[in-house]
Formats: sequence, C-alpha cells, structure tokens
Amino acid sequence: MKKDCACFKKNKWFFEEELPGGKPYTKIGIRLKRKIFSGKSRYQKIEVFDSYEFGRMLVLDGLIQLTKKDEFIYHEMITHPALFSHPNPKNILIVGGGDGGALREVLKHPIREAYLVDIDKKVIETFQKYLPFVSKGAFKNKKAKVFIEDGMKFIKKYKDFFDIVIIDLTDPSGPSLPLFSLKFYRDVWRALAKDGIVVTQSGSLLLQFPQVKMISKSLRKIFSSVKIHRTCIPCFFDGEFSFTLGSKRVNLDKANFEKIKERYEKLKLKTKYYSPEIHFSSAVLPKHHRQNLKIK
Amino acid sequence: MKKDCACFKKNKWFFEEELPGGKPYTKIGIRLKRKIFSGKSRYQKIEVFDSYEFGRMLVLDGLIQLTKKDEFIYHEMITHPALFSHPNPKNILIVGGGDGGALREVLKHPIREAYLVDIDKKVIETFQKYLPFVSKGAFKNKKAKVFIEDGMKFIKKYKDFFDIVIIDLTDPSGPSLPLFSLKFYRDVWRALAKDGIVVTQSGSLLLQFPQVKMISKSLRKIFSSVKIHRTCIPCFFDGEFSFTLGSKRVNLDKANFEKIKERYEKLKLKTKYYSPEIHFSSAVLPKHHRQNLKIK
Repeated sequence: MKKDCACFKKNKWFFEEELPGGKPYTKIGIRLKRKIFSGKSRYQKIEVFDSYEFGRMLVLDGLIQLTKKDEFIYHEMITHPALFSHPNPKNILIVGGGDGGALREVLKHPIREAYLVDIDKKVIETFQKYLPFVSKGAFKNKKAKVFIEDGMKFIKKYKDFFDIVIIDLTDPSGPSLPLFSLKFYRDVWRALAKDGIVVTQSGSLLLQFPQVKMISKSLRKIFSSVKIHRTCIPCFFDGEFSFTLGSKRVNLDKANFEKIKERYEKLKLKTKYYSPEIHFSSAVLPKHHRQNLKIK
Repeated sequence: MKKDCACFKKNKWFFEEELPGGKPYTKIGIRLKRKIFSGKSRYQKIEVFDSYEFGRMLVLDGLIQLTKKDEFIYHEMITHPALFSHPNPKNILIVGGGDGGALREVLKHPIREAYLVDIDKKVIETFQKYLPFVSKGAFKNKKAKVFIEDGMKFIKKYKDFFDIVIIDLTDPSGPSLPLFSLKFYRDVWRALAKDGIVVTQSGSLLLQFPQVKMISKSLRKIFSSVKIHRTCIPCFFDGEFSFTLGSKRVNLDKANFEKIKERYEKLKLKTKYYSPEIHFSSAVLPKHHRQNLKIK
C-alpha cells in the first residue's frame, strides 16, 4: 500500500503501482473492506486484505499475489498445460507456490509425489491461516512433501528425476531473482527426467514484455521445445498474463487434442478455467507478440 | 478524472473508477504527461490526455475509450471475426465508432460501402484533431459515408440491406443505453441481408458479466447463431473483454479455418492482433464462462 496516497486513508483503497522501467506509470486500485493481517518475514512484507470486488487477497511487498476471485485461473494455467503435455507425470516439483494452489491442482492428477520448496515459511503459514481455500488441504495430502529451503540449492540435489517442475514465484526481484536465471534453468534441465517439462510464470505480455522475451530466450537456449500459454488474470494490471513451458524432448507444438481430451475426461478432472480446448487456444499468440518474440 | 482524489494534483494521475453494482470497487490509474483537450458535447464530457504507459488516450464521461498503445486490439477484434464469418461482406454499417478505428479495419476488406452513424459530431471531430492515428484517413475514403444521427432512428430506414452491422458504443448508459435493447437488436436483424451478421462490444467478462449475459441472451432470442469472442484489452480494468456476434443464417460454430486462412492471405490483410488462428482461439471460452452462459 502506498502510504503517501491520500485516497487510502479516506476510503480504504489498496493501490499497487506498476513500475515498467522503474517508474510508476500505472496503478490498480482495489477497495478494501478491512485489513486482516500485516507482518514481515525474513524475506518480504506480507499483507492480507478483504476487498469488495476480489474477496480475500494476499500482497507481498506491495504486489498482489492472488485474490479469491481469480486465483483458479492462475493455478489451473500454471499446472494443467504442463501436466497434460507430459505423457505420464509422476514426480512433480513446485518451486515457490507457498499458497498451495498449484499443489492443489497437481494433486488432481494420478501423480506419485509432489515436492514443494519455498524459501519463506511465513508465507505458507499465512496462507494456511488466512487463505486456506487456496490449498484446500493439499499440504496434508500424503503425496505432498514440503521443504523450507532455497530452491536454487534444492534443485542441485536432483538429476533425471522430476517429470514436471513448476516455477511459481513472485516477479523477478528479491529472493525470486536468481530463479529466473539461465543458471537456474540449467539446473532445472538437469533435475528433469527425459520427458521432463518445466513451466514458469513469465509475467504480463504488455507491461513486462522484456521479461517474457528474456525467459523465452533463456529457455530456448536449453530446452528443445518452448511454448507460451496466455491468459487473462483480472487482478493483475492489464490482465494479459503468460506462462512459459520448456520441454526436454516432448514437442510442445505437436500436442494431440484427442489424446488430451481423452485423458482429461478419464480423470474426471474438475477445473473451472482449463479445458482441452483452452489448452490449445491459450497457446495461440496474437500476431504482434509472435512477431516480437520471433515465433513463426 | 476524480477531482476528489489527492493523487491527481500531486502526480498527474488519471483514475477511472469501475462501478459494478453502482459502487466504486476498483479503479485503474494511469500517469499523465499532460492534458491535451477537455470539452463537452451535447451528450458527454470529452477529454484527451497524453500518458506515459499508453500514449495518447481519449476519455468520455470519465471512462477510457481507447489508448494509442492498445486500440488495435479492440478495433481488429470488433471487425475481422465478423467480416471473416460472412461469405462476402459488401455493405457495412458501424453504429457509433466515431474514432474511425473500426472503419479503418473494415476498409481493409473489399467492401462496397461503409456507413458510420454516430450521434456525437464532437467526438468525431476530437478524434480527427487529436487522435488522427486511429482513423488513419478512413473518413476520407470514398467508400465511407458518415451520418451524424441517432443510430436507433437510422437503422429503421433499412431492410435486408447490410451484410455486417458493427455496434461500437460506449458502455450501456447515456446515449448508448437504447442501443443495447432487444428492440434495437430486432431493428438490426431487419436491416441485415440474409447472410447478415451483427457484432457488438459486450464488455468485461469479469466485472460486467451480467451485461455480457444479457446481450448474449437478447441476441439468442433473435439470431440463429451467437458467438462470443474474447480478448485482453490492457487499458480496460481487468483486461478480459468480449465481443458478441449474432448471425441470421451463417452457423458461427461451423466456421472453416482453411477458408478463412485462404481469404486472409489472399487479401494480404495487415493486422497486428487478428489472425485466422486468433479467430478461432478467441472464441474458446473458459469453462466457468461457458457454464455461466449455459454454452455447451
């Protein structure tokens, strides 16, 4: 929350400032009912609010992480396109994702184990206490193993092991920054089994385009196939949001609709946003993005 | 602009308040370089600003209508899905659209004539003077005929005539309100030729969902086939935006990709957002929208 904004005190508004190029050019305002929690972990400031439009929401260092109204879009889209692109995902790693939303979605698949490694215990605890509707008990699932560690170090312990690595982080600054590096992506490649697929949130296609491009370029250097999925997440300024997948061997451009549909129906997967149709339509980029990213 | 917001005077911010259910629950803030124009027409307040993130922008009654940065998304998506769904569109009517952006896109097709009827001459003049990059000279094209009239009355003069009617209006309030009515849609149906297709902007799928639903329901009562196309328009709060098409006879669910692609390539249509692939992917709705709209 911006303390210098007179709007807040008068009408209880939360403002998030977007800083393309380091300057506040745009902001999003959300009217609050009340502040639920405010605290600090070793890594970041954590705030929980109740809002009129978006319901309960969690904010890290002044940036909205998720809201009750639209978290399902983010979590379904960071999970299912990657898992359905893999022939048989069993061992899953989530880097970050302390809210438990990606874990919740992963556990809808017939996986063996899901590891979740988050550096900030306080974030996990805050979600468990104030926003338990995100994980929906996923942390108590026998298949879930939680590690409070630095993902950068954790990943180095594994080789040819994970089928899917989900990089579910805050934007590249603070503790998240090294986890957007080429170095980290190389370690992820090493930790993945032969059909392994990585997926990372890659930011807004409009306001953070240089970041989208950088991630795509880095993954292309290491992975044989790279694909951007696109969605609209209303609580993020400008809505247009991207997830980037990288695959060691599976050709992400040759996904088979009928096979994915058959698997989706067989699993009786309950989703609110994702469907086999969305799997494909979300990977269609508008012409200007394709041109700027040099994708044919 | 909200005069009571202390932010504006200090840092030159434009704030647009969103009012779902009549109360300001969210707002969007855009940092301004300068105010270019402020005036009043008989119908509405007109303002033009230069902003850092979105470039030049036009605001009617406090609501952002378009910005230089992303107007191409809106105008391509209100135009091309409708025109490419029609086998051979020749006579076009644009109701509203005084900025000339939809007219510009329509003129990329081998049409016979494009009529544009807007109630507010001052809006057209403001765009011509301060934002000529939107129409790009389209108003001077021989195929373009402009009428300063009430669209509600204008449409009654025609029967079995237009191949496409584009309803390009501000949100349903003030002068636009009657043009979202069942009565008006019936007049549009009457004015359309036998393969005729109507398209209307139908608002945000998140914040204005009741409106999206109402428009879809109304069109279903009159047209044989109805289809919602979805896009992300960053300058609108929450990004997720919809255009709804209604067709007299053409089955919008049976569009042929190869045919549209062939036509698109033959015309050598220059677009930045639209492509034959986007034509189809934009019509795929997430599961929750399909369920709420009762679309199979």
